Amino acid sequence: MRRHDHQTTQADLTAGAVLAPYLQDQAAEFLRSLRLHRENSAPTDAGSHGAEEAAGALRRSSRRIGGTLHTFRAALDATWAEQLRTELAWLSGTLAREHAYATRLNRLLEALHALSGTSLPTARHGSGSDGATDKERAALGVGAARAGALLERQLTLARTRAHSAALQALGSSRFHAVADAVALLASEVPLAPAAAAPAEEMLHGPADRAEQQLLGAVAALPSGQAVEPYNEAQDAPWHRTRLLLRLHRYAHEVVRGAPDPVLAAPGHALDLHRDASEAAAAAASAARTPRIAPATAYALGVLHADQRHEVTAARGVFRTSWPYAAAVITP
Amino acid sequence: MRRHDHQTTQADLTAGAVLAPYLQDQAAEFLRSLRLHRENSAPTDAGSHGAEEAAGALRRSSRRIGGTLHTFRAALDATWAEQLRTELAWLSGTLAREHAYATRLNRLLEALHALSGTSLPTARHGSGSDGATDKERAALGVGAARAGALLERQLTLARTRAHSAALQALGSSRFHAVADAVALLASEVPLAPAAAAPAEEMLHGPADRAEQQLLGAVAALPSGQAVEPYNEAQDAPWHRTRLLLRLHRYAHEVVRGAPDPVLAAPGHALDLHRDASEAAAAAASAARTPRIAPATAYALGVLHADQRHEVTAARGVFRTSWPYAAAVITP
Repeated sequence: MRRHDHQTTQADLTAGAVLAPYLQDQAAEFLRSLRLHRENSAPTDAGSHGAEEAAGALRRSSRRIGGTLHTFRAALDATWAEQLRTELAWLSGTLAREHAYATRLNRLLEALHALSGTSLPTARHGSGSDGATDKERAALGVGAARAGALLERQLTLARTRAHSAALQALGSSRFHAVADAVALLASEVPLAPAAAAPAEEMLHGPADRAEQQLLGAVAALPSGQAVEPYNEAQDAPWHRTRLLLRLHRYAHEVVRGAPDPVLAAPGHALDLHRDASEAAAAAASAARTPRIAPATAYALGVLHADQRHEVTAARGVFRTSWPYAAAVITP
Repeated sequence: MRRHDHQTTQADLTAGAVLAPYLQDQAAEFLRSLRLHRENSAPTDAGSHGAEEAAGALRRSSRRIGGTLHTFRAALDATWAEQLRTELAWLSGTLAREHAYATRLNRLLEALHALSGTSLPTARHGSGSDGATDKERAALGVGAARAGALLERQLTLARTRAHSAALQALGSSRFHAVADAVALLASEVPLAPAAAAPAEEMLHGPADRAEQQLLGAVAALPSGQAVEPYNEAQDAPWHRTRLLLRLHRYAHEVVRGAPDPVLAAPGHALDLHRDASEAAAAAASAARTPRIAPATAYALGVLHADQRHEVTAARGVFRTSWPYAAAVITP
């Protein structure tokens, strides 16, 4: 943390005077997105573009409120903060699912399209020779096309279910309680008595701890030398780092009043890492469908490996962009 | 070419005085390897370690003699040079096949082993859920094991056939004519009258042309930005560059009397590129086997993509190591 700058901007403010406007802004954003979502939602089909954007904005404000309640809980009513945080995590998780299936399908179909120049064999062509003939080559895309159709079927079904679940959640009494709590938050933040202390004293310690947790997680990531692209158990510390980077980013927004631009590139790399990891798992899952043709299974195998290599590539981008962020964070 | 150094070492030599000892050394090496090969060969099974080493040495000297006959043909009896070169290309091509199948199988089995931590599904597990259960995970290696067995069967058969073909070639009258020609070469090199001219005049021009062809081929390689990992048509200019680098390396050995160490790293990268490209094609070819299980096809798809990414990685290594070589070649 750049204490120097904090002192310049927040020298005389209480913790509550820094925390409350941030939470109130995010709560207002939450309520605005909710209104937009209602105006743009048709209950029958998967969300319109407007509804998707509104759901995205709703998730973003939910995550920011939840992260702030977590990081700065010492300056807030503890029971209230913990309960609202849990409910916001449920809400943003529920809303995220539909978006994740849509993103995953797009990613996989784009990757399959890029693979279409490859030697995807069909079950009909049984020659053991190297090098496909022109005739064979013309039929090579069949496995990729079938794999695409299978993924489209499975992920569209999953997306539709997630859409219904999200609409159901947004109509539930559980959600109404969350929306009420956020509406209250927009007008008044339940601060702890400690929030009357200077921001420097009450907020910078927790923000520094969020930063230290991020730095610790990055330091514990396996080195580039130890890459095993197909060891999916190795993804977990990266996913954890992604969440810690997000918490750090939100804490930075609270205490500095603006996002830290140096976190954008490593954060984006960790998002791509998560997307590729989940897309690879979806390809593997589709390949477990009973009675698929070998050509389809083959294309799914190519796709799985391709996405696992995207996982490795995203780690490389993170490793390249991180030192710049780290140098700014801990000068 | 570092003309400066050539002048130091070959100032007063004729082209023949430089060319003849090199060709005679390589011819002697050819005959020694042939003797070793005969001593270590059992006609019934795939070659012993000693026979493999001897065949490797035989290919190396064949390639060097052939390359030299090609690059410096103006200083040699043209008809003789062209004919012997063609026959040596046939011989080294025939001998290379057995080695190539063995290398390919090793590479693919090692890659499959590295993949065994991955989500290779089995046909029996048909759940469409994300994330395999422990029970599923225990069975995930089945596809990889079957793919390994299939590749082992196909490539061992191909290797055995190549071994028989090589033994047959080494017993043929065509081969005896080659061996006789090389035995003659070991005692006397059929030089052209022009070989009486200074080495500087007769050899450096052709060596420079070999170098320019290499530099031209490297300059024409598609850029790293334009990578399409599954576009196998893009491999051809890399394979061509590999052959031109080899011709340049041999020309350098002739005119400088020793291999150029800066060519080792980019040359090795192009060898890996070729190996990975052919291994990927073998995985695709195995997936065209009729009636294979979907789990086997899936594992072969993963393997194909994995080897295609090795192709891309080898290009990256070449691009990293090449500037050092280029800086030394054209200072």
